[in-house]
Amino acid sequence: MKKVAILGSTGSIGTQSLDVIRALKNIEVTAFSTNVQIELLEKQILEFSPKIVCVMDETRALQLEKRLKEKKISTKVCTGLEGLIYVASESGAELLITAVVGMIGLLPTIKAIKNGINIALANKETLVCAGELVMGMAKQLGVSIIPIDSEHGAIFECLQAGRKNEVNKLILTASGGPFRDFNAKQLETVTIEQALNHPNWRMGKKISIDSATLMNKALEVIEARFLFDVMPENIEVVIHKESIIHSMVEFIDGSVIAQMGIPDMRHPISYAINFPKRVNCSVIKPIDFKKTFALNFNAPNTELFPSLELAYYVLREGGTAPLVLNAANEVAVSLFLDSKIKFLDIPKLINKVLDKHIVINNPSLNDILELNEWARKMCYEGVV
Amino acid sequence: MKKVAILGSTGSIGTQSLDVIRALKNIEVTAFSTNVQIELLEKQILEFSPKIVCVMDETRALQLEKRLKEKKISTKVCTGLEGLIYVASESGAELLITAVVGMIGLLPTIKAIKNGINIALANKETLVCAGELVMGMAKQLGVSIIPIDSEHGAIFECLQAGRKNEVNKLILTASGGPFRDFNAKQLETVTIEQALNHPNWRMGKKISIDSATLMNKALEVIEARFLFDVMPENIEVVIHKESIIHSMVEFIDGSVIAQMGIPDMRHPISYAINFPKRVNCSVIKPIDFKKTFALNFNAPNTELFPSLELAYYVLREGGTAPLVLNAANEVAVSLFLDSKIKFLDIPKLINKVLDKHIVINNPSLNDILELNEWARKMCYEGVV
Repeated sequence: MKKVAILGSTGSIGTQSLDVIRALKNIEVTAFSTNVQIELLEKQILEFSPKIVCVMDETRALQLEKRLKEKKISTKVCTGLEGLIYVASESGAELLITAVVGMIGLLPTIKAIKNGINIALANKETLVCAGELVMGMAKQLGVSIIPIDSEHGAIFECLQAGRKNEVNKLILTASGGPFRDFNAKQLETVTIEQALNHPNWRMGKKISIDSATLMNKALEVIEARFLFDVMPENIEVVIHKESIIHSMVEFIDGSVIAQMGIPDMRHPISYAINFPKRVNCSVIKPIDFKKTFALNFNAPNTELFPSLELAYYVLREGGTAPLVLNAANEVAVSLFLDSKIKFLDIPKLINKVLDKHIVINNPSLNDILELNEWARKMCYEGVV
Repeated sequence: MKKVAILGSTGSIGTQSLDVIRALKNIEVTAFSTNVQIELLEKQILEFSPKIVCVMDETRALQLEKRLKEKKISTKVCTGLEGLIYVASESGAELLITAVVGMIGLLPTIKAIKNGINIALANKETLVCAGELVMGMAKQLGVSIIPIDSEHGAIFECLQAGRKNEVNKLILTASGGPFRDFNAKQLETVTIEQALNHPNWRMGKKISIDSATLMNKALEVIEARFLFDVMPENIEVVIHKESIIHSMVEFIDGSVIAQMGIPDMRHPISYAINFPKRVNCSVIKPIDFKKTFALNFNAPNTELFPSLELAYYVLREGGTAPLVLNAANEVAVSLFLDSKIKFLDIPKLINKVLDKHIVINNPSLNDILELNEWARKMCYEGVV
């Protein structure tokens, strides 16, 4: 039995991870966490019997603890960031799935790495905000960081077909979002509803807007740079509206290896849990090559979607620039969703914050957390 | 310096292999062979200084020997099948590229395998006619058989991204040939010129007709079955007219790994020579993902192109059935090219021969060579 802990077990990736684990039958779940969803967490505890869980909200943590006591369930309940760190690193897991959203995932992930626990990473901020630090630590301690994410998961799979020093280029595919066929004039007046209406799938609001601005892909470029230790100039983005090829690797001999599948997050989850093996967990639908279909490719329009260029800019700047981009984007998106700024203002506002930022190289964890707050504050002020 | 011998050095694959070897700079060529092209072979000898060469035609062999003597070149000249076997197995090569056409490649390849020489295989007949025998021998002696062929080379690369017992399906792509959009009525009256006019590239006559009947893909299904030890029902053919994805592997977790590239035989050649490394030999043009393009897929029409079904039929029959298919097809194609039969008669004639064939299981080399002649004779008689 492989022992797995999940941070963010009640979220989208968390529940899909449990779908996979349920189908696999040879996984012991040692820990869970949620922000506030104690009803769902309780069901998960009853089904999987973890040793410890963390409820970030203290009141709810106490409620859950009481309920478990009444049912004579021995699962220990922690709370807050301290609890999350404990749950991430002390449950006896061999693999930690970090599926929490935001900077809150950073410290628990680092603690788990320090304890030699492999990481299945679904938390974007870990690599965008502290890529060098986290990957350096993982490398030093021989800890694997396996992405739970269609694009990076695809690249991770494709990389198995060659050696690290044989990689020429990573090619990230992008659906292009709801505005992939819009012109400059059309983009000026897009509404929140339009921006939330992703052509390929339903997602949370923040990631839907990131998909519409291509910032989602920009953040993936940053993640790829650190996760795979590849220079930014060797990372390319291509629009592939069908989202069947999840990403590709071009090797030095000109050969391109692509990973394909019907979009389903349970595949990268299953791959990360079972790596280096592949296991049929019977939940993933295969591609039907008996059907007639086409896969289309074209270059992204970086004039209309400047977010993508921002990724390369912050990577050239280095140090804390990527985390400032990420923090400013979070605020800019929430301002757009609150109708305080227009769609095209999102990258403009981010640019303003980046202009004011003085890069710190090799930042400490403290620098990272402080600059994150600074960038958020600047972004809010930028709009006033 | 890696030592490589080439059977069929003056042919298309042979000369392209030398393009690659020239670019690689760390390969010593130990042996060459040709049927009759001694002018080109002499140039190759002057450039690469092999120890031995074979000229199949005895008169030309003597001519070349005389010329080399006059120029005080010490390369030894052999002739005939015996010479070809000697050149394949005794030149001190670590890798033998078998790029000869037809059954003639079989005995030299087997002798090389017996001597522990790895094989880069561009000769179709070796696996179609003696797949079980050759692969069994290679496995027993720990010899690698690496395909020099777009489709099997692609599958070989894709298989590196998983383990043997994790393979669900091999997916061979097919351009579909010049008649991929034809209906039954149109196929009835196709001319030799139409059949030779492949939409994607220029090739020899035999392979062009095989491409038009889809027999080329049928033979590849047979090769794949033996080369990768995968059951026929786990081999699928899909029409992909752009020929950019050279083939794919579906793993048990539903993930499909595809190998892509601009069609160029020098890639599988370079891959086979350098395996398990990848080397940039600067002769292969990469795919330009900045361009707008589409990759199309659809199922082959097996009613209009019955050759494909014949592959599965002979694999179910087993034993000598695949070699009879291959021999009958060779004759049927030459009869079509001589205007003796119509395009749609090709599979019909093959079917007739297969109907008369009594399968021999675990055939000896002698059985194989004899049945090959029998099938050819039957096919010629079938038309009279």
